[in-house]
Amino acid sequence: MADDKKLTTRAADFSAWYNELVLRAELADYAPVRGCMVIRPNGYGIWERMQRQLDDMFKASGHVNAYFPLLIPQSYLSKEAEHVEGFAPETAVVTHGGGKLLEEPLVIRPTSETIIYSMFAKWVQSYRDLPILINQWANVVRWEMRTRLFLRTLEFLWQEGHTAHATHDEAETETRRILGIYRTFMEQYMAMPVVTGQKTESEKFAGALRTYACEAMMQDNKALQAGTSHNLGQNFAKAFELKFQSAEGTEEIAWNTSWGVSTRMVGGLIMTHSDDKGLVCPPRLAPIEVVIVPIFRTDGDKARVLAAAEELKARLGSFERPEHLRRRIHIDAREGMKPGAKYYEWELRGIPLRMELGPRDLDQGQCVIVRRDTGAKQPLPLAELETALPALLETMQADLLKAALARREANSIRERISYDRFKEVMAGPGGFVYAGWCGDPAVEARVKEETKATIRCIPDPEFRSAEPPTTCMVTGRPATCEVLWAKAY
Amino acid sequence: MADDKKLTTRAADFSAWYNELVLRAELADYAPVRGCMVIRPNGYGIWERMQRQLDDMFKASGHVNAYFPLLIPQSYLSKEAEHVEGFAPETAVVTHGGGKLLEEPLVIRPTSETIIYSMFAKWVQSYRDLPILINQWANVVRWEMRTRLFLRTLEFLWQEGHTAHATHDEAETETRRILGIYRTFMEQYMAMPVVTGQKTESEKFAGALRTYACEAMMQDNKALQAGTSHNLGQNFAKAFELKFQSAEGTEEIAWNTSWGVSTRMVGGLIMTHSDDKGLVCPPRLAPIEVVIVPIFRTDGDKARVLAAAEELKARLGSFERPEHLRRRIHIDAREGMKPGAKYYEWELRGIPLRMELGPRDLDQGQCVIVRRDTGAKQPLPLAELETALPALLETMQADLLKAALARREANSIRERISYDRFKEVMAGPGGFVYAGWCGDPAVEARVKEETKATIRCIPDPEFRSAEPPTTCMVTGRPATCEVLWAKAY
Repeated sequence: MADDKKLTTRAADFSAWYNELVLRAELADYAPVRGCMVIRPNGYGIWERMQRQLDDMFKASGHVNAYFPLLIPQSYLSKEAEHVEGFAPETAVVTHGGGKLLEEPLVIRPTSETIIYSMFAKWVQSYRDLPILINQWANVVRWEMRTRLFLRTLEFLWQEGHTAHATHDEAETETRRILGIYRTFMEQYMAMPVVTGQKTESEKFAGALRTYACEAMMQDNKALQAGTSHNLGQNFAKAFELKFQSAEGTEEIAWNTSWGVSTRMVGGLIMTHSDDKGLVCPPRLAPIEVVIVPIFRTDGDKARVLAAAEELKARLGSFERPEHLRRRIHIDAREGMKPGAKYYEWELRGIPLRMELGPRDLDQGQCVIVRRDTGAKQPLPLAELETALPALLETMQADLLKAALARREANSIRERISYDRFKEVMAGPGGFVYAGWCGDPAVEARVKEETKATIRCIPDPEFRSAEPPTTCMVTGRPATCEVLWAKAY
Repeated sequence: MADDKKLTTRAADFSAWYNELVLRAELADYAPVRGCMVIRPNGYGIWERMQRQLDDMFKASGHVNAYFPLLIPQSYLSKEAEHVEGFAPETAVVTHGGGKLLEEPLVIRPTSETIIYSMFAKWVQSYRDLPILINQWANVVRWEMRTRLFLRTLEFLWQEGHTAHATHDEAETETRRILGIYRTFMEQYMAMPVVTGQKTESEKFAGALRTYACEAMMQDNKALQAGTSHNLGQNFAKAFELKFQSAEGTEEIAWNTSWGVSTRMVGGLIMTHSDDKGLVCPPRLAPIEVVIVPIFRTDGDKARVLAAAEELKARLGSFERPEHLRRRIHIDAREGMKPGAKYYEWELRGIPLRMELGPRDLDQGQCVIVRRDTGAKQPLPLAELETALPALLETMQADLLKAALARREANSIRERISYDRFKEVMAGPGGFVYAGWCGDPAVEARVKEETKATIRCIPDPEFRSAEPPTTCMVTGRPATCEVLWAKAY
């Protein structure tokens, strides 16, 4: 359990604040293998709610789940040239099984394009077998050198969608549809605003035709890539002979998409909303929405208050209620601990609402509710909780999104600035800078070298500036597009 | 899609029937790595429903989910003597990561006791930190030599619960509680009756004090171990120094339990209910409960029937409805395929109810419903479907359990038979044989050697014979207990 030492503040050391918060709120812990993490129940509960919601959204848009093997023959990875170049250096390799040296080494999947499209090739004969719209929830391993809890770990949990289509346009529509689902989820559930757009050639997925991404701004003004959706074109279909007979009888090559979000989102959620007291969790993703802290001095009061708390929990949180009407309530009935110490702990853990319930409250038929994000206190009649609690939770949910959006906009620069000024910004406060770009990859590389900032994306139309830039911020040459620059995780 | 060839019958070759069914109903497929499988959407949908239900049951009994790493230092496995002996020969070993030879090889978890209890040891200081009631949904790898789709694969999906307690008795209660949850799930959701009981010393989990199991009878009269729950005693707690300070201030060693069920259950479900036409899936676990097959000749009829089908699906299956009131409905609107061909396919896939809907049905405000298990046809008024469909599904669910139970009892021998007769039974029809046992492991080994039958468990009291056996079936010595013999998967 958390000790009483205060967290390092965000202002003093954002990175230390993040690590301390994750450990002390018991969201995750370091595992005995370098770069691996244990996701503890407080953190896993958030991931579970993310999973449940995204899964519903995938299913509502026609996708089904499946499961493909963890172990991939090393030769499979090599079949798509760019793909192997991107992933081979990062793989974990199984050389022995059942006490014997394997004939061919197996890699632990860093991503599953190769094994999945090899199976699709077996299953698809005719255009009638298309589209295939499959998702899997799985663990993957990438041998990263510098790791951070949730943000970059050797093993992480994710979903990876893989689809096959008869035409390029259908694949492109799917790629964009998923990007929209990710955006909706991040805004409406994580309360984390994102800029969507296309990745440049140098930042796209190894093997993709085009990569789209959701980019969010953390409280240290750095960008976090929170989800990607790839139009893979026919690259993998050609490598794995994923062909089909068209309605006209000709043999055609299929078109693929793949897309994923991971436990990294939990890190994004933390860095978007939390404060120096600890985690602030958007209500829709909070494993516990309301913690009841009973307040009493005498044994008689204790019995009465605990009974009332149990009655409230039974009424509002019963497993008999349909899930969307069931409140996730925890009663903190621990003995020998003062209410203040409990408040401190639940604030650290980010529970959206705290309910203080004492004998005087009961006399008046009310309780006191404290919001985690604002600290605002208000009395609420017990008889009205059934409607008042969901309303308050939804208000908090909306307020968190508004606050995050306002912070992002306050730290975004849309006016045209010089490259010298840009360097000052990136060396100083950081943030999102929208600027013209000539399209030259050498310029992109130079800026990265000089400032550590990268092109996060070529923003989608709704995120572009009202007056499009006409010249490249760096070279002064004509701009081919507007891009979003930021330092990133 | 399935071709028109009939399945091999169960009577002709049960094993071939099972493999064909799994492949042709598209429940699973062989992966390119030996012994690994791809779980296709039709099969994964069943597993997902199993997961959802079990997860609710675990949560309702106070458990929370977490996630521990896939990769375990090889030295961890060795810390518990029996454990390493049981699992080391079956491991897949990662020797290289990021292009380099690792200092210490890592094993892919065959089960997670070692890594989980090493973390518990870090988290637990005081009796106040107990109990820990954790579950994880994960993949594990065991390098098996002889594999079968769903039943035994190199990689499989499962849940593994891991708990820590202050006393032996509390751990024992937990072990038994979980066995009860498994039994309830298998009976009420899988419609698969099980015999619960304790494993003998030679069959218990490597590192456990006591192992309890659920044993089900398949249609070939062989037993399938469908779930196990282990009281681990202090074996792992000692190995990993999982200690705590008691309320009295003394240092104590904790007590652990672990328990798991896996994708093997899907194989059990298939072999319990299915017939020569294909899968029969219990309604509660069926990804699709009702398939609507529209019947029409003219374009006008077609439009009318399809519109009615869509209206039914929207009304009964809308995602707006709470999950427990939402019917899982699929409309088979494929063109150029006769209704009979569709019926054949949905029978193969085990959809519980087929709804035939034609223009004449619509004129009469009704539809025809066909049950997958019995083939029984009955007309149902469309206006009553909201209550009639769930009632019919629940009836089918209950009937499947009754039929499976009757089959098991018909193939169980409770009268006292000689060992010679026992050998005939095991060489012939097989089945469950309840018999006295002297408790000698050498006898157990000899019977296995001579008949391939093993002691599945020492049945719990409710499964024991009314008149307990007094002598050992094999040796004639006094019986120490009654045991359940069977050949097993």
